[in-house]
Amino acid sequence: MYTVAYLNDFTRDVFIKMGCSYEDATGIAEVFIAAELRGLPSHGMIRIKDYYQLWKADRINVKPVIKIIHESPSTAVIDGDGAVGMVAATRSMEIAIEKAAKAGTGWVSTCNSNHYGIAGFYAMMALRHDMIGISMTNANPLVAPTFSVSPMLGTNPIAVAIPAGKQPPFVADFATTPIARGKLAVAEKKGEKVPLGFVQDDTGTPSDDPAILKSGGSMLTLGGDYIHGSHKGFCLSSIVDIFSAVFSGANFGPFVPPSVAYLPLLDTKVGEGTGHFFGAMRIDAFQPAQEFKNRMDKWITTFRNAKPSKGHDRVIIPGDPEREKENKIREEGICILPAIAKEMKEIAGELGVEFIPDTEH
Amino acid sequence: MYTVAYLNDFTRDVFIKMGCSYEDATGIAEVFIAAELRGLPSHGMIRIKDYYQLWKADRINVKPVIKIIHESPSTAVIDGDGAVGMVAATRSMEIAIEKAAKAGTGWVSTCNSNHYGIAGFYAMMALRHDMIGISMTNANPLVAPTFSVSPMLGTNPIAVAIPAGKQPPFVADFATTPIARGKLAVAEKKGEKVPLGFVQDDTGTPSDDPAILKSGGSMLTLGGDYIHGSHKGFCLSSIVDIFSAVFSGANFGPFVPPSVAYLPLLDTKVGEGTGHFFGAMRIDAFQPAQEFKNRMDKWITTFRNAKPSKGHDRVIIPGDPEREKENKIREEGICILPAIAKEMKEIAGELGVEFIPDTEH
Repeated sequence: MYTVAYLNDFTRDVFIKMGCSYEDATGIAEVFIAAELRGLPSHGMIRIKDYYQLWKADRINVKPVIKIIHESPSTAVIDGDGAVGMVAATRSMEIAIEKAAKAGTGWVSTCNSNHYGIAGFYAMMALRHDMIGISMTNANPLVAPTFSVSPMLGTNPIAVAIPAGKQPPFVADFATTPIARGKLAVAEKKGEKVPLGFVQDDTGTPSDDPAILKSGGSMLTLGGDYIHGSHKGFCLSSIVDIFSAVFSGANFGPFVPPSVAYLPLLDTKVGEGTGHFFGAMRIDAFQPAQEFKNRMDKWITTFRNAKPSKGHDRVIIPGDPEREKENKIREEGICILPAIAKEMKEIAGELGVEFIPDTEH
Repeated sequence: MYTVAYLNDFTRDVFIKMGCSYEDATGIAEVFIAAELRGLPSHGMIRIKDYYQLWKADRINVKPVIKIIHESPSTAVIDGDGAVGMVAATRSMEIAIEKAAKAGTGWVSTCNSNHYGIAGFYAMMALRHDMIGISMTNANPLVAPTFSVSPMLGTNPIAVAIPAGKQPPFVADFATTPIARGKLAVAEKKGEKVPLGFVQDDTGTPSDDPAILKSGGSMLTLGGDYIHGSHKGFCLSSIVDIFSAVFSGANFGPFVPPSVAYLPLLDTKVGEGTGHFFGAMRIDAFQPAQEFKNRMDKWITTFRNAKPSKGHDRVIIPGDPEREKENKIREEGICILPAIAKEMKEIAGELGVEFIPDTEH
């Protein structure tokens, strides 16, 4: 187990050694740690290696000049200048919040960025300003449209955070696929099958083999098959892609660059880097703030009190499980798998940062 | 078969006879006809009876004074004054478009409205202004949250319309359930079973019986079961409900009033009427308009050219099937089932409007 402070400082120092400013590195570390705290380790320490290798391959700009390249009173397009995704995304969400403070809402589409970690982090930035936050991003293609076998879309997540009063905020943060890529990878490593509706083979036949992705298979959109509404999942994923990349001038769909250095950059570009989309809406742009919060409290308690199904003891409000995990992990510490800790130590050694795996204490 | 013009004028005249202004009745008829043209007859002529009976029960205000009750440069909350949903929704979307013309984007949440027909109609209103349109609405509760057996949510649709250049626009319009309520009703009438993932019984056990809704059962959210991501469908449906009703002061979740007169109004109110949410974003708030359209054309052709699955000849871009239906129906005429035509004739007789079913020609 590691304390939050220890891993936070380690992550910050790694990015400082790569050349990031203290401020940028602090912000990056905060997003990595948020992923661990919210029980999403697939976007936590395990990803440091990916960013480190992108940096070694000169595919990340650690001294970005992030600029507004187009704007209106309630919108902006941001050029992330090839920054670490967390840096471009945090600055973009700050601009959405600044726009909202004046215009009631703010909407930012960002090009020339990279993998930005957990979508929910940016949506939640709005909460402390009494705003609703929205965050989405495209990602490298793994997912096929309904009736297609071509991986054309990423797992393209959507996050929406809505402030409440006495109740904790509503925080939805979900990929527009039935299951996360990381969970398929875990099943594959364990040699396990997966339920139908997650992946298909290279002819479009449903498959229960997560390894099928390595032999021409693809992931499916939320819904899983046409009968169960996979075309609706395709709509959602497409909307994320268009808002993130067509709006901003980033690469869309099959042209989104890989977020790992062991995959080469694509030959074809239709824009710059990866794209994101952010929104901030002042709650008092719709209702007096206290009234909004009272209504949201009532919404949450109404749904929390819905009758559970047999075998379940409660209805889960979006954000509940992650908050409970965060409370537990803050108390108990963050668990890092030995294989990940080993990678972190190697990277630390190469960069001249100290890292002592907990197994060596 | 009926011509578009004939049914349009008939619908307009029915609403005029109920007391609507010529302008309002014309707008209402346009939304009804749009549903028929887009191949969604479940929201077309079949619904005239519902509105007529709501009017007879004095549950619709045909002389509404629709007002902005709260606003910021890019937002407004609209009190629909109990109007026919199409009237409140059209005025709300117009205000979203007016806000967007000045602020780049416009966002409107509407309370005190009623069933508004097809969500896509309002999203598509933005297209002629070179804007992206968004439309969503809550609806009377039929759908249970994940791990619950209580019908807490409507089928809560989301529509997003995005202009293109040479290509037709991208128009997504979908309920946040795997299947529409209307299709379950058809299966029930035919005595057919439905695939698992659509409905559950009163303990939360998946069921293949569409009639289960009459004995304590409920519909499921997009995803169908937890393993396939029904909690993501629950997030989406919740977001629609909150944006439509918590933002506006409408009734939310289980408190949304029924849209048919044979169901009594609920004892408990947490707001006024049904709620909707609308958005309009100027494309040139993000990119020069022609550049945006060129990029959108490229997005559409890229996805249209994705490799089809075995047994399918093409990938469907959101909006394609409805546009093809519209072209066909405009040419061939609108088909109305004899039972619906009979209802229309009865209503016409009571109101003093002429309606001649095509079977009697």
